[in-house]
Amino acid sequence: MKIQSRWDGAETVCTFTPRSCHTAIPGYVYGGLIASLIDCHGTGTAAAAAYRAEGRAMDSQPPLRFLTASLQVDYLRPTPIGVPLEVRARIEEVKGRKVTVTATVSAGGEVCAKGRVVAVQMRERAIGS
Amino acid sequence: MKIQSRWDGAETVCTFTPRSCHTAIPGYVYGGLIASLIDCHGTGTAAAAAYRAEGRAMDSQPPLRFLTASLQVDYLRPTPIGVPLEVRARIEEVKGRKVTVTATVSAGGEVCAKGRVVAVQMRERAIGS
Repeated sequence: MKIQSRWDGAETVCTFTPRSCHTAIPGYVYGGLIASLIDCHGTGTAAAAAYRAEGRAMDSQPPLRFLTASLQVDYLRPTPIGVPLEVRARIEEVKGRKVTVTATVSAGGEVCAKGRVVAVQMRERAIGS
Repeated sequence: MKIQSRWDGAETVCTFTPRSCHTAIPGYVYGGLIASLIDCHGTGTAAAAAYRAEGRAMDSQPPLRFLTASLQVDYLRPTPIGVPLEVRARIEEVKGRKVTVTATVSAGGEVCAKGRVVAVQMRERAIGS
């Protein structure tokens, strides 16, 4: 998605402006894009929290990487095309290598979708193999 | 997604081959793509079932369109890049304008992810407004 996520207190935030190629019904974003934003920002948030917990910079070695174990998205209202979407996430639970992240996607201050990502940290030796 | 779905008995099926731009960890597809495939094929399946129930061709008027109300995806194993993925769906329940579709995504005959889409048929007057 090429999104850049940053911390904002206990939350992480990123923005993304959907283009016409992301259309479902004319004027509105397709559900898969919203799911992708929540997946991408959610696993990124899980990784950011893991680096923060270890007091490490995000470009330090070895890399901490997370894969999606499950994704749930509820679409509350149609999401408009062409305006910036704000994706906010927070850590709900950390249980060993499994991190649960909740997220919202808003347009113009209105929440259009909310979701939950369960991300699992990969074992180091599995990376790149 | 530009996928083409077709009926195969009581199921619908489509195939999609992920490219390098769909990478999460090297060699594997990111979760959002899987979610997008299930969303896209799932809402398409809901629409196909609605046309079939009315005995109509899919290009007949007025159009029957569905929006995603919720999406749930469980990732069972990493999904490889570069091989065709088969997405299969079936109607689980039709309740008024709400259709629940279950789906699987397989690579080389192994199920990599399974999902459930709740799709809601748009009211005709809302389309294009």
